[in-house]
Amino acid sequence: MTKPIEVRNPRTGKFDYVILPPPPKLLAQQCNRTRRAQVRWQQLGLEGRIEALQQWKQAILSGRDRLTEALVNDTGRLSVSVLEIDSFLASIDRWCGLAPDLLQEFARNTAIPFIALQQTSVPYPLVGIISPWNFPLLLSTIDTIPALLAGCAVVVKPSEIAPRFVAPLITALNAIPKLRDVLNFVEGAGETGAALIECVDLVCFTGSVATGRKVAEAAAKRFIPAFLELGGKDPAIVLESADLELATSAILWGSVVNTGQSCLSIERIYVAESIFEKFVHQLIAKASRLQLAYPTVETGEIGPIIAEKQAAIISDHLLDAVEKGAVIHSGGEIENLGGGWWCSPTVLTQVNHSMKVMTEETFGPIMPVMPFATVEEAVYLANDSIYGLSAAVFASEAEALAIAHQLDAGAISINDAALTAIMHEGEKNAFKFSGMGGSRMGAAAIKRFMRKKAILIKTNSTSDPWWFDNRE
Amino acid sequence: MTKPIEVRNPRTGKFDYVILPPPPKLLAQQCNRTRRAQVRWQQLGLEGRIEALQQWKQAILSGRDRLTEALVNDTGRLSVSVLEIDSFLASIDRWCGLAPDLLQEFARNTAIPFIALQQTSVPYPLVGIISPWNFPLLLSTIDTIPALLAGCAVVVKPSEIAPRFVAPLITALNAIPKLRDVLNFVEGAGETGAALIECVDLVCFTGSVATGRKVAEAAAKRFIPAFLELGGKDPAIVLESADLELATSAILWGSVVNTGQSCLSIERIYVAESIFEKFVHQLIAKASRLQLAYPTVETGEIGPIIAEKQAAIISDHLLDAVEKGAVIHSGGEIENLGGGWWCSPTVLTQVNHSMKVMTEETFGPIMPVMPFATVEEAVYLANDSIYGLSAAVFASEAEALAIAHQLDAGAISINDAALTAIMHEGEKNAFKFSGMGGSRMGAAAIKRFMRKKAILIKTNSTSDPWWFDNRE
Repeated sequence: MTKPIEVRNPRTGKFDYVILPPPPKLLAQQCNRTRRAQVRWQQLGLEGRIEALQQWKQAILSGRDRLTEALVNDTGRLSVSVLEIDSFLASIDRWCGLAPDLLQEFARNTAIPFIALQQTSVPYPLVGIISPWNFPLLLSTIDTIPALLAGCAVVVKPSEIAPRFVAPLITALNAIPKLRDVLNFVEGAGETGAALIECVDLVCFTGSVATGRKVAEAAAKRFIPAFLELGGKDPAIVLESADLELATSAILWGSVVNTGQSCLSIERIYVAESIFEKFVHQLIAKASRLQLAYPTVETGEIGPIIAEKQAAIISDHLLDAVEKGAVIHSGGEIENLGGGWWCSPTVLTQVNHSMKVMTEETFGPIMPVMPFATVEEAVYLANDSIYGLSAAVFASEAEALAIAHQLDAGAISINDAALTAIMHEGEKNAFKFSGMGGSRMGAAAIKRFMRKKAILIKTNSTSDPWWFDNRE
Repeated sequence: MTKPIEVRNPRTGKFDYVILPPPPKLLAQQCNRTRRAQVRWQQLGLEGRIEALQQWKQAILSGRDRLTEALVNDTGRLSVSVLEIDSFLASIDRWCGLAPDLLQEFARNTAIPFIALQQTSVPYPLVGIISPWNFPLLLSTIDTIPALLAGCAVVVKPSEIAPRFVAPLITALNAIPKLRDVLNFVEGAGETGAALIECVDLVCFTGSVATGRKVAEAAAKRFIPAFLELGGKDPAIVLESADLELATSAILWGSVVNTGQSCLSIERIYVAESIFEKFVHQLIAKASRLQLAYPTVETGEIGPIIAEKQAAIISDHLLDAVEKGAVIHSGGEIENLGGGWWCSPTVLTQVNHSMKVMTEETFGPIMPVMPFATVEEAVYLANDSIYGLSAAVFASEAEALAIAHQLDAGAISINDAALTAIMHEGEKNAFKFSGMGGSRMGAAAIKRFMRKKAILIKTNSTSDPWWFDNRE
């Protein structure tokens, strides 16, 4: 039998919730049942699937308070939880609106006069989603919604660090049997995730590079597609021509929102040396105005560090930086308040690429700022990373665009931070170790869940196959 | 040091050619040089790349005789070699014609008024191609041409069983330094292929399931995309409503062309029981008219079995079938003529799915025919396979379409065989163990070689980042 897993509360440090991973055999059985149910889900047609998702949305809305409460317990922060729920609900509407166009199949004549082509798409029957703890709701549903609309059944394994939000989702699901049969949530940690990969026809994983590699290898063994969204170490580049007020506000926000626990948060800041002092001064001033969301969730902007292991990593990166000569201008400490781990927005200077804080994913509200002399140097430093998720450039539009084209990353925000968080139309691949597989954004996102099938029809009426006219 | 590999001639059985695999360090060095050259190749722009490929085409045309001779020595067959060269040259023209449209980048406004989107594509710097021996030229270039046009550099490792065709290609390349710097061929067997995967940014592999799995795992470890085209066991289904003359001609051709050494050759034939006798009779009659291309390459239609190991597999499948009760109506023997291995078109009945000849890839001119009572049974039998590459259906168009939608395969030819061999516009994924990754056909084929990059530009002039308008 599998063992229950105790779940820590990020505000109190108490283990106040328990999940029970299913034994692998039971999981396999559940997956097979879900795969069988997929046939009816696909036959339901897109309209029927849209209707079921909209019903789910309504049911979630009527139990919204319980979902908020669960998410707050999972993550210790309130306003980002509210935003998560809003974004999740908006994503249902967005995909329901886009899907009819994106899933249209077509027939057409081809360059060869006697062959007609029908292009169709066939959903992967069962999709597995393994999601992380930093945006528990959003990242467990970002791939789930398009997969369901494509006609797949989905089994989601959320992180064992923040699993409370699932119960209200299931309650809402129970009112919609059609959807409940093809959308399952399973509780568990790494072992359950590994077992899930063995049962599904496609896997989406959001998480660390180390686990992502295991997921990719396990998927490769089974010849199933793996779509990975892994870490980032997003740089921001600020040129002399930048709007400094905008740059400091956007970079501050882009670094500390959700306490920096975001794959697309800004983790390295490169500033033209001519404006370096001014930039740092303004950033420190703005950073110092932010407050911890303590003692209550309603106060302040900076929530607790959700995962205890992450507090240790942030602390390690800060110690390493200071040991190597970095100077801390604000924040800089991991404190325990009432059982939770907290870190105020931290501005660092005198940093370089020998430090972990400039090369490894920190995942905290940490802003190391480094000056550069030339644009070439800035581009070199930004690209000097194993990651290539996204980046931001602050400068006149022409200068910024020229830099954007040279950055090895899938999404570049110009004169703002993390614009992919609100604009989902652009297709983007994760470069380097930041991920693998098709774009999670744009039209490609839903197409990842379907295999293309070409039906080629000989339309002339001779009894000769094409070969007879084409051979020597 | 690596050891030289002796290469067998499929017509004489003599080892009359030698290749020398590069030591891994030398290969890595060569790959790095090629990757560095890619920068200039990309900067050359699409027009410059098209020009270089067209120059290569002209150079190949002027040395065409030597290429034909080399391919004949590699494969022992003439007319298919001529067709291979024609198809390869046509594919250069086809891709050069399509690429300008397919590689167009675009800028557009988005649903969010203050964000503009520029969508660009970035080629993977270095693509590795590992290709098989059955269509040595075509399958080593099918991915190479679009990859080069996309702006990638390419290193090709052709099969060690049929590597002679490379020398004339390189001779032609030497006249075009721009292209020669970014298109390399390396000689070697599995070890060289494995070493190549460690050096490239994307790998395309055409070959067996067993090797394909190793390729996929090695690629997953490095987070590089792997596009695999593996085996097939393509079924043909013939209904009572079929044009019998057409069905027998197309299925015969689809089974025996290139001596059945084609991943998309028909390897299983399911015929409605009401027309079974008539079908088999006609198929045997047509099969019996075909001749071996022996003693000279100019005679007959059926070339030798290229790979000695494949002769053993075909023989094993036939023995296994006969032992289990199959009846051979024509051909049925692997003979050694003048040192080469040969097999005449072989029609089998009394076959079932306990036999290897109905379940494993045979890769020979073997036509096992099995009757079915109902359409459901035909669909069940066709889908009862670990493979899902392609399939063919012969029936009235409406009946055939209904069946096509139920078949688990990426491409379905209706009333002809293997239409994907001449019609490359349809996007198709390989289902089940027949492959992994994006479609090798249609517009998707060239897009596989590029990563999407989204540049998102804040276009309003306030100094507030978007977050300030969107937070709670």
